[in-house]
Amino acid sequence: MTKITVLNKPKLKNPILIEGLPGVGNIGRVAVGYMIEELGAKKFAELRSKWFFPFVMLQDSYQVHLVKNEFHYCKAKKKGQRDLILLIGDCQSLAPQGHYEVCNEILDFAKSFGCKEVITLGGLATGELEKEPEAIGALTHKEDLKKYKGTGINFTAGERVGYIVGAAGLLLGLGKERGIRGLCILGETSGFPIVTDPKAAEVVLKSLMKILNIRLDMSKLKQRVKEMEKFIKRVENLQRKALMEISKEAKAPTKGKEQLRYIG
Amino acid sequence: MTKITVLNKPKLKNPILIEGLPGVGNIGRVAVGYMIEELGAKKFAELRSKWFFPFVMLQDSYQVHLVKNEFHYCKAKKKGQRDLILLIGDCQSLAPQGHYEVCNEILDFAKSFGCKEVITLGGLATGELEKEPEAIGALTHKEDLKKYKGTGINFTAGERVGYIVGAAGLLLGLGKERGIRGLCILGETSGFPIVTDPKAAEVVLKSLMKILNIRLDMSKLKQRVKEMEKFIKRVENLQRKALMEISKEAKAPTKGKEQLRYIG
Amino acid sequence: MTKITVLNKPKLKNPILIEGLPGVGNIGRVAVGYMIEELGAKKFAELRSKWFFPFVMLQDSYQVHLVKNEFHYCKAKKKGQRDLILLIGDCQSLAPQGHYEVCNEILDFAKSFGCKEVITLGGLATGELEKEPEAIGALTHKEDLKKYKGTGINFTAGERVGYIVGAAGLLLGLGKERGIRGLCILGETSGFPIVTDPKAAEVVLKSLMKILNIRLDMSKLKQRVKEMEKFIKRVENLQRKALMEISKEAKAPTKGKEQLRYIG
Amino acid sequence: MTKITVLNKPKLKNPILIEGLPGVGNIGRVAVGYMIEELGAKKFAELRSKWFFPFVMLQDSYQVHLVKNEFHYCKAKKKGQRDLILLIGDCQSLAPQGHYEVCNEILDFAKSFGCKEVITLGGLATGELEKEPEAIGALTHKEDLKKYKGTGINFTAGERVGYIVGAAGLLLGLGKERGIRGLCILGETSGFPIVTDPKAAEVVLKSLMKILNIRLDMSKLKQRVKEMEKFIKRVENLQRKALMEISKEAKAPTKGKEQLRYIG
Repeated sequence: MTKITVLNKPKLKNPILIEGLPGVGNIGRVAVGYMIEELGAKKFAELRSKWFFPFVMLQDSYQVHLVKNEFHYCKAKKKGQRDLILLIGDCQSLAPQGHYEVCNEILDFAKSFGCKEVITLGGLATGELEKEPEAIGALTHKEDLKKYKGTGINFTAGERVGYIVGAAGLLLGLGKERGIRGLCILGETSGFPIVTDPKAAEVVLKSLMKILNIRLDMSKLKQRVKEMEKFIKRVENLQRKALMEISKEAKAPTKGKEQLRYIG
Repeated sequence: MTKITVLNKPKLKNPILIEGLPGVGNIGRVAVGYMIEELGAKKFAELRSKWFFPFVMLQDSYQVHLVKNEFHYCKAKKKGQRDLILLIGDCQSLAPQGHYEVCNEILDFAKSFGCKEVITLGGLATGELEKEPEAIGALTHKEDLKKYKGTGINFTAGERVGYIVGAAGLLLGLGKERGIRGLCILGETSGFPIVTDPKAAEVVLKSLMKILNIRLDMSKLKQRVKEMEKFIKRVENLQRKALMEISKEAKAPTKGKEQLRYIG
Repeated sequence: MTKITVLNKPKLKNPILIEGLPGVGNIGRVAVGYMIEELGAKKFAELRSKWFFPFVMLQDSYQVHLVKNEFHYCKAKKKGQRDLILLIGDCQSLAPQGHYEVCNEILDFAKSFGCKEVITLGGLATGELEKEPEAIGALTHKEDLKKYKGTGINFTAGERVGYIVGAAGLLLGLGKERGIRGLCILGETSGFPIVTDPKAAEVVLKSLMKILNIRLDMSKLKQRVKEMEKFIKRVENLQRKALMEISKEAKAPTKGKEQLRYIG
Repeated sequence: MTKITVLNKPKLKNPILIEGLPGVGNIGRVAVGYMIEELGAKKFAELRSKWFFPFVMLQDSYQVHLVKNEFHYCKAKKKGQRDLILLIGDCQSLAPQGHYEVCNEILDFAKSFGCKEVITLGGLATGELEKEPEAIGALTHKEDLKKYKGTGINFTAGERVGYIVGAAGLLLGLGKERGIRGLCILGETSGFPIVTDPKAAEVVLKSLMKILNIRLDMSKLKQRVKEMEKFIKRVENLQRKALMEISKEAKAPTKGKEQLRYIG
């Protein structure tokens, strides 16, 4: 069961879906979270799923809420801008088949608002300290390449990437089947033991702003990341587990004795 | 398949559901088990699920029963008290999606008796020996905070907590969606390799007694824990595995040779 | 999907179901396999399930068959004996919820032949070399204890056992709900890294023969085990994995670097 | 959800299905990939499944596609040849029950084109460097043995094999139930940490050519493998994880402290 609760139904015109769920470096989470705050976007729907961790999270020290994803919207404010659906949340699916189900629900929901385009944000773990992280791009439709000229996105790094995991990838792959065009922007970051990387988030955000024709004051980003940190720490734990779950590897057979008396 | 077998259908008036399934320190299990004995509560329903371990447990040395959860009830005995539904059991769900299914069934069942409030009990693993363990609280509804003044529950520890796993958390999160108000009381305990902690259970129980306006003779708690110990040992093994299952982490790729000849 | 293919439908009178699927020490597998050969039992149905390993097995060096369980029957030959349904197979379910589904199918199928009694066979891993292994018993119905006096089964070892995993346990637990009475006989064996233990199988078989009022020439058991060995080796690999799967434990978070470039 | 998208519906006469999905040594993948190129086979259908990894893959450096399997066909060009359905892809199912579902879909689809025969290709990991790798065979129908005389396939190695995992095995086992005759050809290869083995692929391919009465210029195989290498590296990572997933083993209980504060 994956369920979307609609809080209010905004009228949107040809909106773009921007995904910023937790992931490597929490780059998407930080970038979309910052956009929501700076643009004054409004929450209009929540998604819950049995494929998420069986957890409630604490906010404001003692109040709980079930882990969830949230849809926010923001209407175009001037010519050259677009209506936006901003997707943010506590976690992604835990099981592979859950990713398919949740991403299908997200796309169907976005499509019901006339959405025909999706941009997903994520991190590319390089295993090295990135002094000047780049924004790496991937596309569903080859012919869209020219559209993103001058946005600072490097589209030549595919060989280093190989594949894109979770919502950042599936929203593109499953969207393509529905005729939704997709772009993924990945910020280079040091990688695995996940640490929030505001520098990589900034690089991703700068390219995104160019695409969306939006101007944000980036000076508050680092400060905001510090403020978000408590929340992000928890999210990181969840996300780390979910990613690990997907990429878990087998072990050699255990040689030692099993403590437990085991029967059957 | 998750199935509740009703043994008899008591008439209850505005009952509170109290959850004491196995968990960290078995604090909820011990506390609710003690309440059932001391209050003379009566079993009225059993829950079984394919999401539980595929195990039967042995009782009385040679008789088996399928792992299950049990509902007991206890009617208010004097003014200021409430009818109670006490939930206890051998284990929780093994798979994340099972937690959602089982907790949904529990809440629907409790609601069919007019239940609009739930209190879950659990442990907070601190990693340290707790000399004076505290009762830590979390809520679904902020405005309920004043209701619990003077019960000895510390509602300022949320940052240390982060999230609440399994039934103790999900009954709150999923209950909130049904309009069921929830409180979780966690006893501080040393933590992971699970050991039953009667001291933490006592702290939780004392706060709970104040809320429920019930008086129990606590002097027998430690002795009862000793008596329960054999059963609890088995439950601990099951529960440890279930919790581990939820929190399991990935491993680095195996370098060694695989013994097994493997084809495909 | 769990599917039973009926090859022919024997007329059975009040049959007992005897389960001998692979497990600790392969005690049930060896014991029931030997009974089938010695009694000349006939295969009448096969069970396949998506919950089994996605494997085919090789027999006769180059012919494959999908992993499966098999039902054989054997009619009573003299007074005091009973019709038997003998359950044997390549493996058990891999996932916990699959165990519930497969065992439910087995019980429904047996019940359709009028079966009201089940005996499951298994091993109790003691972690020590057992010089004189005992047969340990567990029951669904306390009052059946007297029925098994004089069969050499020790019904006082429950505390050492704790719980019974997989088909040997679930056929009892789920059977009880359908009014099917159950007995489980466990042979003490050294344990985990599974090795076929003909000595423990013999102890279990001796008690079973007394219950069923059947006489078998045990002298060929060890020799037969040697002949079965090639097949059993493969079955052991499958079974070891399935048991491990059920009892797998969490690991500490990986500290090392992840080789793989990972994005999302 | 497992879904086959038909791009165009060729008319085929009594076609043989040849499976070459990723696996040990990527032998099937390389062999069928080479056949598709050399024979000029045409893609006519794609299969996607929630049981695959939740990944998109990158091709041409920046374009993504959802992981998938592909059906290609190739009509008989001269007498003595047969119409072929060639199955290739990015990955196999991740979960055991997914293997059953995906292979059932593949067989139903092939049968809708009149297919009554399947040949699966795979690798046999021997753990040793194979100087002169052999092609090892397994069959669904014993009587087909004579048909494969003189094809260089060794049908006496079953004891070394034991079982065949994934699509290479299940297409045979599940096909047999539908009256589809099957042959599996395994190339001996060094094994686990998966490396593409063109030498073993060549051995398998040579036997296959004899069966299909097709002549291919093998001189380009090694060169082609080099060209495929970039793609194959990614596929290997996915495949390694999927195989590991199936064969994963339990670990001993963790003794160390859990860093995470854990509650519930």
